[in-house]
Amino acid sequence: MVYHEQYSRYAGMVEETLEKLLPGTDEICPKTEGVIPEHLCASMRYSLMAGGKRIRPVLLLAACEMLGGDLEQAKTPAAALEMIHTYSLIHDDLPGMDNDDYRRGRLTNHKVYGVGHAILAGDGLLNYAYECLLENAAAYPENLRGHMLAAKAIANRAGVRGMIAGQSLDLLSEHMEPDAERLLYIHTHKTADLLTAPLLAAAYIAGASEEQIDALRRFGFCVGIAFQIDDDLLDVEGDAALLGKQTGMDAQRGKMTWPALVGVAAAKERSARLWDEAEEALGIFGERAAFMHGFAAQMRTRKS
Amino acid sequence: MVYHEQYSRYAGMVEETLEKLLPGTDEICPKTEGVIPEHLCASMRYSLMAGGKRIRPVLLLAACEMLGGDLEQAKTPAAALEMIHTYSLIHDDLPGMDNDDYRRGRLTNHKVYGVGHAILAGDGLLNYAYECLLENAAAYPENLRGHMLAAKAIANRAGVRGMIAGQSLDLLSEHMEPDAERLLYIHTHKTADLLTAPLLAAAYIAGASEEQIDALRRFGFCVGIAFQIDDDLLDVEGDAALLGKQTGMDAQRGKMTWPALVGVAAAKERSARLWDEAEEALGIFGERAAFMHGFAAQMRTRKS
Repeated sequence: MVYHEQYSRYAGMVEETLEKLLPGTDEICPKTEGVIPEHLCASMRYSLMAGGKRIRPVLLLAACEMLGGDLEQAKTPAAALEMIHTYSLIHDDLPGMDNDDYRRGRLTNHKVYGVGHAILAGDGLLNYAYECLLENAAAYPENLRGHMLAAKAIANRAGVRGMIAGQSLDLLSEHMEPDAERLLYIHTHKTADLLTAPLLAAAYIAGASEEQIDALRRFGFCVGIAFQIDDDLLDVEGDAALLGKQTGMDAQRGKMTWPALVGVAAAKERSARLWDEAEEALGIFGERAAFMHGFAAQMRTRKS
Repeated sequence: MVYHEQYSRYAGMVEETLEKLLPGTDEICPKTEGVIPEHLCASMRYSLMAGGKRIRPVLLLAACEMLGGDLEQAKTPAAALEMIHTYSLIHDDLPGMDNDDYRRGRLTNHKVYGVGHAILAGDGLLNYAYECLLENAAAYPENLRGHMLAAKAIANRAGVRGMIAGQSLDLLSEHMEPDAERLLYIHTHKTADLLTAPLLAAAYIAGASEEQIDALRRFGFCVGIAFQIDDDLLDVEGDAALLGKQTGMDAQRGKMTWPALVGVAAAKERSARLWDEAEEALGIFGERAAFMHGFAAQMRTRKS
């Protein structure tokens, strides 16, 4: 199967699983109050089903299949990871955080449902991710330990030593002079950790070896950092095209970026090196890694 | 051991466990940035170590001991539950939710650390609760299924079919006419669910019988609803004393309350009936339930 068909196959599984897992309004509402916690459901659904690329859950499914694991067991963890990613976007967009009115051309959650329900929808998606992970673990008693380790890998990388630590330092670094160590910390935790999480979760579900786990961790880290540098580069080039000038600063945000720190050319070089290293890390998987190579090739040439 | 000594013993275990589990600043910070995600740690610690009564984790430890379970295995789940309770308070106090400047006489989290970090501290505590639950489960492989079910019981009652659903309906019901069904839904989910959660978690950790689980569920529900009605009554009496008049409305908040719905006398009667029912539910535990009876007796006569 060619890369794009394979991607669509995985992404289709993610959509289907999310649709199945999302709690229905009538489950949450008291019967006579049909209009009410509908608001909470609708708010969660609005952001979760907003047509994202589903990169993280697709990576989880692909890694599971590459390792010879049972894809059926990986669907719910994949969906749970997307819930965590989505909650982080909802909360990131809030006033007091990035205070964004739009995300991918649509109004942000709090602009539609109010700040209170955007907070609750984020909390709800985060908590529901763990409900789903635990429910799924209970459904596979013969692989309970694998599922618990997978959930732990996701929780560790989503949490206060992972993504949330990255968000914290990101928030505290606005309008500061770029600093290499600080920037690497932000990119590692805010971006790379949630790309490593699906690979490790898949590894535990599929019962991978230590050597395979190390390779996946390296792949995830390189992809994550390269992905973030490319994001910053695309922003710079977007701004430059817009403003008709070359700039190393993400002026709109006052955010620290790699191009701002080392310049556009050096940032491009670093990204290219990381993509190479990511593909090297796949060596031990041989031909089974075809999709992962395709993923890296696709990502490194993306234009948006 | 008399009731108060026993309570202090359990509460002491909770403080100790929280102190041990809370991630240290140097774990989160890059070494050279000692001042930085200290902000995230400090924000989490500020609310978590604010001297709460630790009712929920104490109930978990007490139920575990009553059921003959291993107290050591219950300490981390108890602490995790307190993290979840604390995150819900931090987010409840935010602008867009209750917008409170003070909680128990101290500035609320966002007044000290800013809205962004209050959001992150709440997210961090919620996620860290699951990290701790999963870490603890992995530490007891011989009781992995019990721990997984305990975590699931907590997650279900904290989530979008539990506490968060209650918060959502509470938020949507401000300044509305009181309505019995709606009010029971809010109290059941916003308050009772997080008091039932520790009892069920303890039951799964200790391997309790179905009959014991049903009794604990009934005890938790009655305690939760009675507790909330008493809270509303104490508010009314506080307001009445302050304003020199008897009122059934929580005027300051515009929140729906039981006294507002049925009057003070009927609310008091309902609370008394629920406390009686709670104690009845403990019947099957015989003398082992001494602490639980003490807890109910203490709660029903509280003055603040």
